[in-house]
Amino acid sequence: MINVIQLGLGPIGQRLTRYLFEREGIQIVGAVDPDPQKVKKDVGEHADIKALGVSISPNLDSCAAIRQADVAIISTVSFLEKMEVQIREVADYGLDIVSTCEELSHPWKTHPECAHRINDYCKEKDISCVGTGVNPGFLMDYLPSVLTSVCREVKHIKVERIQDARPRRKPFRDKIGAGLTGTEFEENRGAIRHVGLPESVHMIAEAMNWKLSEVSETMHPVFAEKTISMDSGKVQEGDVAGVRQVARGYQSDSEVITLVFKAAVGIEESHDSIHIIGSPTFTSTIDGGINGDIATSAIIVNAIRSISRAAPGLKTMLDITAPAYFSGVNA
Amino acid sequence: MINVIQLGLGPIGQRLTRYLFEREGIQIVGAVDPDPQKVKKDVGEHADIKALGVSISPNLDSCAAIRQADVAIISTVSFLEKMEVQIREVADYGLDIVSTCEELSHPWKTHPECAHRINDYCKEKDISCVGTGVNPGFLMDYLPSVLTSVCREVKHIKVERIQDARPRRKPFRDKIGAGLTGTEFEENRGAIRHVGLPESVHMIAEAMNWKLSEVSETMHPVFAEKTISMDSGKVQEGDVAGVRQVARGYQSDSEVITLVFKAAVGIEESHDSIHIIGSPTFTSTIDGGINGDIATSAIIVNAIRSISRAAPGLKTMLDITAPAYFSGVNA
Repeated sequence: MINVIQLGLGPIGQRLTRYLFEREGIQIVGAVDPDPQKVKKDVGEHADIKALGVSISPNLDSCAAIRQADVAIISTVSFLEKMEVQIREVADYGLDIVSTCEELSHPWKTHPECAHRINDYCKEKDISCVGTGVNPGFLMDYLPSVLTSVCREVKHIKVERIQDARPRRKPFRDKIGAGLTGTEFEENRGAIRHVGLPESVHMIAEAMNWKLSEVSETMHPVFAEKTISMDSGKVQEGDVAGVRQVARGYQSDSEVITLVFKAAVGIEESHDSIHIIGSPTFTSTIDGGINGDIATSAIIVNAIRSISRAAPGLKTMLDITAPAYFSGVNA
Repeated sequence: MINVIQLGLGPIGQRLTRYLFEREGIQIVGAVDPDPQKVKKDVGEHADIKALGVSISPNLDSCAAIRQADVAIISTVSFLEKMEVQIREVADYGLDIVSTCEELSHPWKTHPECAHRINDYCKEKDISCVGTGVNPGFLMDYLPSVLTSVCREVKHIKVERIQDARPRRKPFRDKIGAGLTGTEFEENRGAIRHVGLPESVHMIAEAMNWKLSEVSETMHPVFAEKTISMDSGKVQEGDVAGVRQVARGYQSDSEVITLVFKAAVGIEESHDSIHIIGSPTFTSTIDGGINGDIATSAIIVNAIRSISRAAPGLKTMLDITAPAYFSGVNA
C-alpha cells in the first residue's frame, strides 16, 4: 500500500482524490489546501465521494498523517517558480512527489537554474520528483519518444493534438479563450496559452540526444466558422472558438520537431497523431484523441508507482519506468 | 562512447553490425561467432559495410577487445535454455547485455527458475541484462503497457499485429510457413511458430499488476485465397500464406488480454493496433504497421543506452527507461 497526501483541492485535485480513492494499492492519508472554504472539510466529501475520515489541512505542518505518507501529489500551480517553494516543503518531510505542474515536466532547458536547485534539494532530501500529465508529460513528448525506439534513424518528429473542447470541462474552455472576441483574445494572450509545449520539445530533444539551436512557439486564435453550442453557452460565429499553438525545435536551419496543439469548440475530428520521419517512417494515430481531463489525473496516479521506484532527484518521464495503469501494488 | 561486442553474426547480427556502426556514440570493438566460415573475417566486411579492423572471434575468451567493452549484443538463439549459458559467459566479463532472444523478453512466468538464476547471476556480476525486439519487446507488450498510462481503469487490452510478409526477409517468410502445403504446415508446427506471444501477455499483466489465472496460445495456418508472388517464388492458391497466432490472458473466466499476431504473404492492409477498453477507451493504430526487420535491430541498438543506466539484474522493458532512438551518447 502506498500512502498519499493530496496537495491542492481545486477541480483537478478533487478529480485526483476520486481516482486515488478508487485505486487498489493506494491510500489517501492526508489532504492540504490553504483555502479557508476547504480547510477542515473531509476530503472525500469535498471530492463528492463520501467521508473518508481525512480532513483538509491548511498546510503540511498541520497534516496529522504526514509521517505515514510516502508520496505527495501536488496539483496547485502551472509555473515553476511557485512550484519550487512547495517542492521544498514536501521534500523536507521526505515524500516523493508527482505533480501536474506543466513547467516541471521538463524544466532543464526552460528554467535550468531552478531545475538544478530542485534536483539538488531532492537529492539532499533523498526523494524523487516528477511533473507529468497528458500534455505536457505524455502525448506530445514521452509517447513520441517511446515510439522512436523502433527507429534506425529519426529525421523529423511531428505531433498533432487536435481536439474538440466541447467535451472538456469549462475551465479548460476558458483557458483556450472559447467565447472571447478576437480583441479580448489579444488582450488576454498571457492567460490563454496552453502551458508546456516548449517543455515537450525539449523532452523529445533530450530523448534523441539532439542539441537544438532554437525553440520557437506561436499562438493564434481559431475563429468559429458558425455559431457553436456548448453546455456553458454559445460561441458566436466569428468569435474565438479556441487556440492553435505550434512549437518548433530546430537543428541549425532544419526544423526537426514540430508540435501542433489545437483545441477549439466545434472541431469535428479530434485526434492525436505522431508522425515520425526516418527509418522507418510511420504515423501512429488515436482517432478521437485522448480526453485530457481523465488522462491527466490518471497518469498522475499511475506515475506514483514509478516515482516510488526512482532514484532521488528531479526526474522527467524519460528517467522513470513506464507509468502504465496498475491495479494494486506489490513486488 | 559506448563500446559494444556483437555476438552472433547471422542475418540479424549482420544487420545489427550495420546499425551499430552507423550510430553516433557507439563503437564496435569486438565480434564473436563460432562458425568457422566467419571466424577471422573482418566483421565490417562480413556485414557488407567496409573493413572495420575488428575480426570475428570464435568465442569471448579469444576476443582481444573484451576488456574495453561495455555492452554485449547477443543475437544467437530464441530459446532461454541455450541463452542462459551465453549470458553467464558474458556476465563473467562484466558486460551489460541486450539480446534478441524472444524468451528472454519476459521469462518470469514462462521460465521462472531460469529467470531467477539469470537475475541472481547478473546481480552477482554487477551487470544488467534485457531481452527485447519489436515483438516481443515493444509493439505487443511494452507499447500497450505505456499507452495505459493515461487510463483511470483498464478492463481489456487487445493488440493486433497484422502484417504482409512480402516485404520481410525470406527467413521470416519461412518461419511463418509461407509456401507450405497444409500438411507440411501441420508436420512443421514446432518450427513455424512465432516465439514470444505468451511472454508479451505476461509482460502486460505485470505492468497492470494483474494476476492471470490462465494464458493460452493457438496457432492456425492462413491459406492463400489466390496465387501470390514473392521475390523468392510463389505461394499457390490453397497453400499456406502464413500464420495466425492468438494468445490470451484470463482473470478468472474473463479474457483481459488478447494478442493477435497474423503474418502472411498477400495481406493488403498491414497494421499494428492497440485497443484499450476502460476509461478512457481508445484505439491507437499504425497504418501499414512497423517493418519488423528494421525495428528489431533498431530497438536493440536503442536499448543500449537504457541498459547502461539500469541497476544490476535481469530486466524487462518495464524495468528500464524508454529506449528512444538517440544520436550520440552523453549526460
